[in-house]
Amino acid sequence: MSVIVMKFGGTSVADLDKIANAADKVKQEVENGHNVIVIVSAMSGKTNELVGWVKDSAPGNGLHDKAEYDAVVSSGENVTSGLMALRLQEMDIPARSWQGWQVPVKCTGHHEGARIDAIPSENIEASFADGTKVAVVAGFQGVMADGRTATLGRGGSDTTAVAFAAAFEAERCDIYTDVDGIYTTDPRIVGNARRLEKISYEEMLELASLGAKVLQTRSVELARSYRVRLRVLSSFGETISDNTGTLVCREEDIMENIRVVKGVAYSRDEAKMTLVSVADRPGVAAAIFRPLAEAGVNVDMIVQNISDDGRTDMTFSCPTDQIALAENALSRAQEDGELNFKELLNDPNVAKISIVGNGMRSQAGVAGKMFGILADEGVNIQVITTSEIKVSVLVDRKYMELAVRALHDAFELEKAA
Amino acid sequence: MSVIVMKFGGTSVADLDKIANAADKVKQEVENGHNVIVIVSAMSGKTNELVGWVKDSAPGNGLHDKAEYDAVVSSGENVTSGLMALRLQEMDIPARSWQGWQVPVKCTGHHEGARIDAIPSENIEASFADGTKVAVVAGFQGVMADGRTATLGRGGSDTTAVAFAAAFEAERCDIYTDVDGIYTTDPRIVGNARRLEKISYEEMLELASLGAKVLQTRSVELARSYRVRLRVLSSFGETISDNTGTLVCREEDIMENIRVVKGVAYSRDEAKMTLVSVADRPGVAAAIFRPLAEAGVNVDMIVQNISDDGRTDMTFSCPTDQIALAENALSRAQEDGELNFKELLNDPNVAKISIVGNGMRSQAGVAGKMFGILADEGVNIQVITTSEIKVSVLVDRKYMELAVRALHDAFELEKAA
Repeated sequence: MSVIVMKFGGTSVADLDKIANAADKVKQEVENGHNVIVIVSAMSGKTNELVGWVKDSAPGNGLHDKAEYDAVVSSGENVTSGLMALRLQEMDIPARSWQGWQVPVKCTGHHEGARIDAIPSENIEASFADGTKVAVVAGFQGVMADGRTATLGRGGSDTTAVAFAAAFEAERCDIYTDVDGIYTTDPRIVGNARRLEKISYEEMLELASLGAKVLQTRSVELARSYRVRLRVLSSFGETISDNTGTLVCREEDIMENIRVVKGVAYSRDEAKMTLVSVADRPGVAAAIFRPLAEAGVNVDMIVQNISDDGRTDMTFSCPTDQIALAENALSRAQEDGELNFKELLNDPNVAKISIVGNGMRSQAGVAGKMFGILADEGVNIQVITTSEIKVSVLVDRKYMELAVRALHDAFELEKAA
Repeated sequence: MSVIVMKFGGTSVADLDKIANAADKVKQEVENGHNVIVIVSAMSGKTNELVGWVKDSAPGNGLHDKAEYDAVVSSGENVTSGLMALRLQEMDIPARSWQGWQVPVKCTGHHEGARIDAIPSENIEASFADGTKVAVVAGFQGVMADGRTATLGRGGSDTTAVAFAAAFEAERCDIYTDVDGIYTTDPRIVGNARRLEKISYEEMLELASLGAKVLQTRSVELARSYRVRLRVLSSFGETISDNTGTLVCREEDIMENIRVVKGVAYSRDEAKMTLVSVADRPGVAAAIFRPLAEAGVNVDMIVQNISDDGRTDMTFSCPTDQIALAENALSRAQEDGELNFKELLNDPNVAKISIVGNGMRSQAGVAGKMFGILADEGVNIQVITTSEIKVSVLVDRKYMELAVRALHDAFELEKAA
């Protein structure tokens, strides 16, 4: 019997009507002859409410016991898994709910950010063998070796879904969400942005880490490792057919790959920080970025200028809301004598624009073309980083939409390959 | 190390402030040198919200999978147990939360109304041995042999508390609630009703089943079986001292027992049903009350009149909202030929008044005195039942408050023994 994994996010199970709508989708797959493993998130808003209560319960030092956080916050998914099972039963579909510890979803690592170690399939398989058609699993949670409930970190239900698809060798892992697929860019900025039929794991990984919020990065990594056919599609479309949504799959499975650039991503709230005149000696990068990492600053792009008289400037980007955190960390390092710089500048008004595509591997000149397009629009490039399949630039934020539209047009992303 | 069990109901953990208030009480017991097992209910209102979602998820036939009900509804207690543990940690008291399956609270019977079979103490004892002072246990829930979560039925957290007190041979089991003890009668009806310092298990059982809603009947039965010293006290008093609240204990431990009548209870929404002219032959009572039981009618008092020409009248009482249920069940039995009666009368406007006291066992004439008091007030008695330690009468509902006050006055319950 073939297994399909279907994952419904918080907006797709936000209330009983939405749960009923999701159940209709599950029914279609059951009628297609599949056993289905449904992964559910908490009703949208519930997790935030629970997290708020946890934070307010331990206001003194801002710290709290992460195991208790997990015990409290995981309850949101328990509720939706039971309600979904009830709804399916009401439609005469044999279904039951599973909490992380019942499967069990075995986790390791630390609370609030645990990793799935193993998902023994016996219990759910026995339930399928007994005639249950649907296993409704509470996403985002599992159980540690010591028997305590763990959560996988925000967005972890995507990872739960992919891990189940891998463990049960599912035919597909369908991620139902409030958008109907992966687009060439944000349709709110570019009106003729096009939904991609297929995208490779590598491209999806770059897009996810560059600001596309549809899939959690870890879930894409896991899907790549286990060759899970991952599909992103809308909870609110009428019917399920193989043409809807976007399939995330191996590069070899994509005919469309003649296309060099696959998508344009952006990240709005970036800041550019520059340390002026630091000593250019071995170990200086570590002296800068270790304190930043310890302070929890998410450093993204890093550029080191050429040296002049044994001193250099070091520029990096981070989210705008971490500017103060970064400044404090670097000032402390300066005071402690671990670091010596003349000045610390920050520009909170920049944005990151990226182009992504597997085809860049084999085709030279893509970066050059990108820079030319931006120059033609009068957009000055402040920082550049590249990887095998992407080019990112930092630009003044006021040019962000203009830059995205210009790149989308020039690479003709609105046209099907 | 001595163990104290403290149970906080829904109104005592209704929000974070109330949880903090309850945590202050726990702290006092820890400072008194005890290890504490705290049993928590869901925040008040939460269980009703979850039950509503369950019912609305299976609207078609009014039935639903009770195992899924339990999976959903138990989540409310998981939340409060985690939040209470966090709050205690914030006060530098080593604490951790326990869900039913983690302890484990082993249950048998059926979902939505499971019974606690065993509570192995090893896990929590190991946690105490490691220096944790407080185990915060989610009340009302446990785990079945098949690994599914079960609930104990509404009010089940009282039973959880008493079962833990028995399993850990606790010094006391303190039930914190929104009243400060057991009263001689409802203070809303009798202004000078008096809080009892002590009451016997048997008296408490009668009062609980007669309408006093402070303790769940099953929890009192369990406390009696295991000789658990049960105390009812207010969550909102300032300090804990042995003089607050009411202790529920063995009859032998009560000096106060010279008092014959301990309390006056009432139940407002009673209906009186009379089957007129049924055949007075062996098996007729079964023919009446089996279909009522199968229909789920909670029959309370039963009176059979003397026989006349081989026929008799049978009267019983039940909650007013079950009148239609009872009528349907009896009409069907009549149609099926299992029963033959001439007429079915109902009076939805009666109330039950009861007096309770261990002293009745040894003192004759208490029932007679009760009937005299009611007669003096012009209150007609419609049905009478007695047990060793209580007398209950059914009266016209309009006399209910009058009857309660008259009995409370005449037996001088406002005076300390």
